[in-house]
Amino acid sequence: MTAREEGAAVGWEPDCPVPRHEAERVLLGHGSGGLLMAELLRDLVGPALGTEGPLEDAAVVPLGGPSPAGELLLSTDSFVVSPRFFPGGDIGSLAVHGTVNDLAMRGAQPVALTLAYILEEGLPLAELRRVTESVAAAAAAAGVPVLTGDTKVVERGTADGLYVTTTGLGVRPPGVDPSATRGRPGDLVLLSGPIGCHGTAILSARESLGFESEIVSDSRPLHRLVAAMLAAGGDGVHALRDPTRGGLATALNELAAASGVAVELVDGDIPVPDDVAAACDLLGLDPLHVANEGCLVALVDAAVADAVLDAMRARPEGRGTCVVGRVTGGEPGRVTSRTLVGSSRVVSVLLGEQLPRIC
Amino acid sequence: MTAREEGAAVGWEPDCPVPRHEAERVLLGHGSGGLLMAELLRDLVGPALGTEGPLEDAAVVPLGGPSPAGELLLSTDSFVVSPRFFPGGDIGSLAVHGTVNDLAMRGAQPVALTLAYILEEGLPLAELRRVTESVAAAAAAAGVPVLTGDTKVVERGTADGLYVTTTGLGVRPPGVDPSATRGRPGDLVLLSGPIGCHGTAILSARESLGFESEIVSDSRPLHRLVAAMLAAGGDGVHALRDPTRGGLATALNELAAASGVAVELVDGDIPVPDDVAAACDLLGLDPLHVANEGCLVALVDAAVADAVLDAMRARPEGRGTCVVGRVTGGEPGRVTSRTLVGSSRVVSVLLGEQLPRIC
Repeated sequence: MTAREEGAAVGWEPDCPVPRHEAERVLLGHGSGGLLMAELLRDLVGPALGTEGPLEDAAVVPLGGPSPAGELLLSTDSFVVSPRFFPGGDIGSLAVHGTVNDLAMRGAQPVALTLAYILEEGLPLAELRRVTESVAAAAAAAGVPVLTGDTKVVERGTADGLYVTTTGLGVRPPGVDPSATRGRPGDLVLLSGPIGCHGTAILSARESLGFESEIVSDSRPLHRLVAAMLAAGGDGVHALRDPTRGGLATALNELAAASGVAVELVDGDIPVPDDVAAACDLLGLDPLHVANEGCLVALVDAAVADAVLDAMRARPEGRGTCVVGRVTGGEPGRVTSRTLVGSSRVVSVLLGEQLPRIC
Repeated sequence: MTAREEGAAVGWEPDCPVPRHEAERVLLGHGSGGLLMAELLRDLVGPALGTEGPLEDAAVVPLGGPSPAGELLLSTDSFVVSPRFFPGGDIGSLAVHGTVNDLAMRGAQPVALTLAYILEEGLPLAELRRVTESVAAAAAAAGVPVLTGDTKVVERGTADGLYVTTTGLGVRPPGVDPSATRGRPGDLVLLSGPIGCHGTAILSARESLGFESEIVSDSRPLHRLVAAMLAAGGDGVHALRDPTRGGLATALNELAAASGVAVELVDGDIPVPDDVAAACDLLGLDPLHVANEGCLVALVDAAVADAVLDAMRARPEGRGTCVVGRVTGGEPGRVTSRTLVGSSRVVSVLLGEQLPRIC
């Protein structure tokens, strides 16, 4: 299979070939959340582990029988964001929100977190304290305990200060199963809020970019929003994804590919704050590829979409929810966007690396 | 409280004061598993998280009610071992064994693992594949699935190739509760095998030390050994610990302190392989402080100790089990060792750092 054929299989048209001859080593793009990363997981990690199937944000624990409370799910994420402190959050709160949200995207409420630190020799203890207090505050606000943890220290020069890995255990009530594979033609595409704030906030905090703004990361927990959606729409909430690395475009491409459907967006309906749009213009970024940490995109049965929309808008983190497109029976895996002048463009996954260490 | 008083409170007599004036920054010793690390957790991480209490290898998940299968436990660990490949294992198998064993030390059998990678740009993909295949093989051998994972990439120079974080979910059958707090006077101290192999194997693999040996790491999963112990001794298996960072001495000091008991070892009864003893002599290390990854120490009610001993010796990983001491009502937290000439010496926790990145 050539690169082009693989791209076509997931509804993606490469603008240029992925640099495979460089692919004998890990590239920054392998961590981007985009196509290179998907290939790494599909071609190397998956086969080496003996696993396959579409990528989900969290996995169901095979326990033999159901727990009385529901199914158990696990999710894990390492966080290497740079800088560690940014407008709207820090690596500690981000680690909590990221893992809570990955559980939520499968319909689970978090019941426990674990916390593992890799520390660079020389890190000021005050920074470690500040990050840990941020973890604690974010966990308390999300209503989930940090149960256990681990600390490793590596020599100067072999880590960039501090890396955090959080793992979450969640419980999913019976009768719901949002999954990347369950999008169906006729579903509406709901987006819980404006896009692009997290990625551009991180960039504005990188002094070396010489770019300043008032943009604040949208980092926040989404599990209560998901609970409200499931209460309103039940099993009609087909698929959920938080468009983190790779942005909304990549998230929708993954959902479309996993569900074997097409997605049609309407460009003008996608909320991009003015200052985010300006920053993206300045930096040459597509807001659809910029990472988010506090919004979600959902594929929802049209029959329950109004009820779900109302439930979302009733919550502070979902106040800005809008319908941004629909699922169709078009070419499986293809995401397109209708522009304001009526033409249609392909919305591709992020190819390599947009900007490293966004989360 | 002075350092000396704190040391006394955990039954430890410092040979030299811990360098507190340097403690405004993370030191390599904070990752050692010894006293500096215990202080970091007690004085900074614990208060910042709002948690307290004795350290356990894994934590019970508060689920409201018991699952039919038993209680759920979580454990997490990051692995930064250098070199990544060493006699008897690699960072992948070590990550699986370490997490499986932490669950086992609380009496739980593993049911799921998660896997998070932090990769340095430039890492050969062949190494990533080799490590991942090792994770898969170790997980399969332990009978536990790797359910989900994460991959982050950082720029050259901001990680040393590859760091791995594994988190394990375990199920503990009803009626058993081995805990660091449950040692009682009269308990026997059982050790499942010879000590010092992992740490000295890692050292022998560090070319820069100019030291070579045939020593092989003892890295292996211990959950089946624990299951056999619990089947034979039930709730009489009071406390379990795998003496990893900080070695047997630190593990026993932690158990003695958490249980408020004293431990008396018999020097000559502790199995130290000849080549490990020779390597430790050469490098100026105390084998009691050297890390292990494939043995456990248990405080077991004397009434069931024979049955537990027989059950342990019936398994390959417990064939070398022996009684190395007993728990007494002496000064709480104090660990002593009777020497061959009849005198008694204090066995202290590891103070700062013996050797970094042993796991």
